[in-house]
Parts: sequence; structure tokens; C-alpha cells
Amino acid sequence: MSLGLTLDEIDTPALVLDLNAFDKNLDAMASHTAASGISLRPHAKAHKSPWIASQQVERGAVGLCCQKVSEAATFIDAGAESIVITNEIVEISKIRRMTQLALRADVSFCIDSADGLEMYDGLAAESGATLGVFVDLQGGWYRPGATSTEQVLDLAKRVAPFDKLRFCGLQAYNAIAQHIADFDLRLAATVEFCHRVNEAIDALNQAGLESFASGAGTGTYDIDPLHAPFNEIQPGSYVFMDGGYLENMNADGDARTDFEVSLYVLTTVMSCPAPGVAIVDSGTKTVSIGQGMPLVYLPNGEKANIEFLKAADEHGTIDVERHEVSVGDRLLLVPYNVDPTVNLFDEYLGLRDGVVTTAIPVSGRGRSQ
Amino acid sequence: MSLGLTLDEIDTPALVLDLNAFDKNLDAMASHTAASGISLRPHAKAHKSPWIASQQVERGAVGLCCQKVSEAATFIDAGAESIVITNEIVEISKIRRMTQLALRADVSFCIDSADGLEMYDGLAAESGATLGVFVDLQGGWYRPGATSTEQVLDLAKRVAPFDKLRFCGLQAYNAIAQHIADFDLRLAATVEFCHRVNEAIDALNQAGLESFASGAGTGTYDIDPLHAPFNEIQPGSYVFMDGGYLENMNADGDARTDFEVSLYVLTTVMSCPAPGVAIVDSGTKTVSIGQGMPLVYLPNGEKANIEFLKAADEHGTIDVERHEVSVGDRLLLVPYNVDPTVNLFDEYLGLRDGVVTTAIPVSGRGRSQ
Repeated sequence: MSLGLTLDEIDTPALVLDLNAFDKNLDAMASHTAASGISLRPHAKAHKSPWIASQQVERGAVGLCCQKVSEAATFIDAGAESIVITNEIVEISKIRRMTQLALRADVSFCIDSADGLEMYDGLAAESGATLGVFVDLQGGWYRPGATSTEQVLDLAKRVAPFDKLRFCGLQAYNAIAQHIADFDLRLAATVEFCHRVNEAIDALNQAGLESFASGAGTGTYDIDPLHAPFNEIQPGSYVFMDGGYLENMNADGDARTDFEVSLYVLTTVMSCPAPGVAIVDSGTKTVSIGQGMPLVYLPNGEKANIEFLKAADEHGTIDVERHEVSVGDRLLLVPYNVDPTVNLFDEYLGLRDGVVTTAIPVSGRGRSQ
Repeated sequence: MSLGLTLDEIDTPALVLDLNAFDKNLDAMASHTAASGISLRPHAKAHKSPWIASQQVERGAVGLCCQKVSEAATFIDAGAESIVITNEIVEISKIRRMTQLALRADVSFCIDSADGLEMYDGLAAESGATLGVFVDLQGGWYRPGATSTEQVLDLAKRVAPFDKLRFCGLQAYNAIAQHIADFDLRLAATVEFCHRVNEAIDALNQAGLESFASGAGTGTYDIDPLHAPFNEIQPGSYVFMDGGYLENMNADGDARTDFEVSLYVLTTVMSCPAPGVAIVDSGTKTVSIGQGMPLVYLPNGEKANIEFLKAADEHGTIDVERHEVSVGDRLLLVPYNVDPTVNLFDEYLGLRDGVVTTAIPVSGRGRSQ
């Protein structure tokens, strides 16, 4: 049991959540969406926690996004009423599961091909459910999604006739723009993407089809809706922030400060084998490095003058030339990418004013099917 | 339940284990160690599975290595009798836990500093246990460990007087050599390291101290012991193999074939958005890319002419210019590094002749403390 412990006492590595910063992040996004009149449907793949989802819904979120069917099941089991699966689902076993979930909640998913439509409709009819269907607009060459307005329109028209499929509109997540650090370049990528979104929406409107649009992440939550008529936004990482999003700049060229870092991997210095180098007890099994190395912070929340040089599976090697450490010292790692890092842990230890007040299960951990 | 399913039917992504290849790998290493008269103490951090450990012990392994105290607890709870924790343990809470485990099994760990010795001895005395202590010889600048023979000898001498600490000898894992693909370069790195191992062993012998040496991984299991008097070897990945170890060459400059690939992440093609590119349903939440991209194999076990280009959290983007795929196709990913990939899953699905015959819990998943 970790309740009542401080950062000096928690068994490491541990996933620790600063609840004060977390609350501020939730409030900031809720205020933004309330003021802008746009709906908030946060992405639950970032946190995989029904408790965090409940905090978002209490602050006005209209529902959740999930990325996988088994992940959606976790949230529906915990009482979620509306889930958009922002991903193509192509296997019979998953579709069957989705139709069962759709008996208990409003469930929709994405397509970028018409190949499965008869199967979707048939399986939905078997279970007596209706499935919502978004057409996915590709947001980067390496992503699934329809690549042209013609394809979007064609797919939408093909969905419409099916009894058990409800066409919901456009899924338009501009993945490629989220992590463009320079604001002007991110803006340019967003404007370009929104040109495609506008074209698709116009085409749907002209055809008399639903033109609801859902999209945008933590990197473009306040830019995308200025350039296309998004009805709802889908940010996930804003609750925690991470090294990737901290690189993003605002319109003045400064680091973005809309949201604060609330999530860290707490680690312990376990060896100082040579001058200038120290080893911490966190490696690739406790912090994801696939997209970048973590940042190193001090227990007081200040950024340390320490570079995370290398991760082995269980060890992290840090450069301590400019900041002395001793064996046993605690450090906070800010993951470069929160989503796959959260997915390594079974629980968050939530701290209020430096003391663990709650252990929050990562109930969706490993639910990648 | 996945029992009875084939690769076409398993819900993906899934961690699948070819039990035929797995058995061959276990047998090959057991034969090698039996023939060479060296003890096998496989590293359980690779598989985190008490069942797999039991298969290794049945074939003659003298015990296990673990990397973390909570991981060791998993194996001792499952009946393991002898565990070397091949890592420095510096926190009071972990040491206390280790002394409790040492009441139920033979438990040793590593040091590279004398700072904690009184505490180790005192905590062991409190619980009535004896802790084994190895001095860790550094195997790469980015690793913990003593950096000179003088330091090894000094540490060994300091351990000796403590009542509740038993000096076990030298932990000498040459991390830096394991993944040097070129055999001659790997050999040269091994010879250089073994020079240090020999020097340390000589110094321990001259001082009348225990000179038992444990080390070597899948990349040097058959090289290290030729160049220094290792008493036992600690390979982990050999049971599965991975993309990293597949790059290793033998003395003839050919790919190593000592062991076969037995472990894969089964994935499904979920989108073919544009010519030459396809998206699979496995990304960084189901395959670790921190040290390299996975290889792509076909369900029949042959290497595919497909490159894994990019991993998002839930998507993998593959180059299918030279191998056509369709939505719904199954592919097998060979992780570049098995250890952190296994740690993403709750179970292995073990297949015998193409059919799932067993689900093996990854009981140590997330036990990184």
C-alpha cells in the first residue's frame, strides 16, 4: 500500500500523478471547450482509467474516444455511455464484440473501406444493435483513412442505406500536425488539413448527408476548430502533458503553457559508477522511449540540468556532469510520450500536495485488442 | 478463451509462442551447458513466466536470475529456490523485502559500492536471513558496476566480515558485447572484457576470497566462457530470440542459427490506405521499438519482404511495395527486443503445430520495482 507515502518513500519505478496539476489541466480544457461552444470527447487511450474518464465527464465531456474494442469494453463495463472508437475495426470477432457493447452504450467506429459494410450490418442485426460509423479522413501518409473527398463521399453514401449502421460523419484527426513543435509550421499543416476537412464537409452537406466532424488532439485542439467546423475535439494527452507536447510552441514562439506536466515516472538513482554518469532504476520497461527520451525533473517539479542518455530494459543512464546526484536520490521522468508509458503500469499513485492520497487503476492497461 | 484457435482466429494483437521452436531452444541451451560443464542460470527478466522457468529448471538450470526484487518475489512465490538479482538494490524498502524473500529461497544481489553494507547486514539480521552478495563488474560505460579490479577487490574484502552477508563472487555481464553483430568485433569485445574478468578473479583468488563468476548473455553465451573461467551463464533471450539477436553472426560470418525465433506478436492488417503502404494493428503499446523496429514474418514462419516503417501507439505502418497484403491478413512481428515486448502482455498463447494449446501468464509483467 502506497497511501500516505511521499516521493521519498514510494517504491520505484512508479507512475505518479500530481493531482493539483491534473485538476488544473482538466479545468483548463473544460473552460476552453465551454467558452468555444465545441464539445469535448477526450481520448481515453491516453489514460486508460475509468476514474479519470469520470472526472472528464463530470466537467462536461460528452463521451469518450477509445482506440480499441477491448479498451472500449473496459470503459463501458465501468459505465461509459458514449464511445467513439477512432479506428478501423476489421475482424469478425472484434465486430461481434462491438455489437454486444452497442447494446449497452452508444458505440461508433471508423471505416476507410466499404468492404466490411454488409458484414457490419449483418452482425449488428444479429445482436439487435445499431453501430455508429464515421468515415476516417487520413491524417498522415502512415495512417489509415480515406485519402480524398471523393472517397469520403463514396463511403458515406454506401453506409447510408444500411439499416443497422448509422452514419455519424467525419473522423478527422490530423496526427501529423500534433507534434510539429514550431507553431507556424503546425498552423500551416493544420490549415492544409482543414482545407481537406472543409472540402469533405461541403461534399457531405451537398449530398444531404451527416457532416458532423470530430478530431483534433492536444497539439491542435485550439487550432483545428478555427479552420474547419469541428463539432467536437478529441484530445487525450492534455491531462498529463509529456515531453513531446512540451516541445510545442505557441503563436509567440514560446513554449506552450496551456497545460502543466502532471504525470511522471518516479525513479531512484541506483549507481554512480563513474564521474558524470549515473544509473536510475527506470528503463524501457517503465518509460517508453520509442518516440524520444524522457526529460528529467527534480522532486520539487523543476526541470533538472540532467540529460537522459540511454535506456536499457531496466536501467536509465543519465548525464550528471552539470547536476550532482547520489545513490538513493529520487528523480522524476517526464515521458516523451505518455500513452505507451501509462500502458506499462497497473496503477497511478495520485499525490495531493506531495502525499499519495489515491491509487488509480490503469484498468485498460494491455487492452490493445 | 483462445485455446484451440489458429493464427487466423486469435484476437490481435497477441503474443504467440511457437512451442516447437521454444522446446528446441531450451534443449539446445541445455545440451550446450551440459556438454561444456558450465551451469545455466537463465535470466527470467526475458520471459517473466514461472512456467517457462520451470521448463528451464526441469532441463537442468541451477536457478534463475532476476533483475528486480518484485520480479524475484513473483518467482519465489511460484516456488523458485535460488535467485540471483543481477542488479544493485539500494532502497531500504526493497532490501527489507529481499531479506523476507531470503527466508524462503537462496537470494543474492549485486553491489558496486560499499555504502549500503552495514544497512544490508543489519536488515538481514533483523529478519534472520542471510543475503548473498555479488560484486558487479561494469559491462559498459552506461551500466552500473565496479570499474576496476582494485574496486572489485576492495568491495569483496568489505563484504567478507559481515555476518549476514555471504560474498558470492563476481557478477560479470558484458552488456556491451551482446548485440555487436559482427562476430570478430563481438569476439574482440568479449576478449577485452574477459581480460578484466580474469584479472578480477585472480585478485580474488590471491586474497583467498570466493572467485565464482556468473555472466554472459545470449550474444556471448558460448564465447565468454572460452576466455574466462565463468562458472555459470545467464542468457535470457535464447528461449525466444529477437530481431537484435538475429543480427548476430557466427564465426563464419553467417547469421547465428543456434536458436530459432519462437516468439511473435501476431497482428492484423487493418487498412491499406494507399498503394505500397498498409497499417497493422500493433504499435508501441504491443511491440517495443526503443532499440529497433520489428521484423515482419508471414504466418507460415517465413520472413516477409515487408519492412516495418513506423510505429504509432496503436498502429504499425508497413512497406508493402514488394509484398501485397489485404485488409484482414495476419502477419507475425518479431520484436527487435523481446524483453520489453513481453512486458506489454498479460499472457503468451502457446501454439503446438499451429493451434493454441496453452495460455501462459506473464506473471512478472509490470514487476519492475
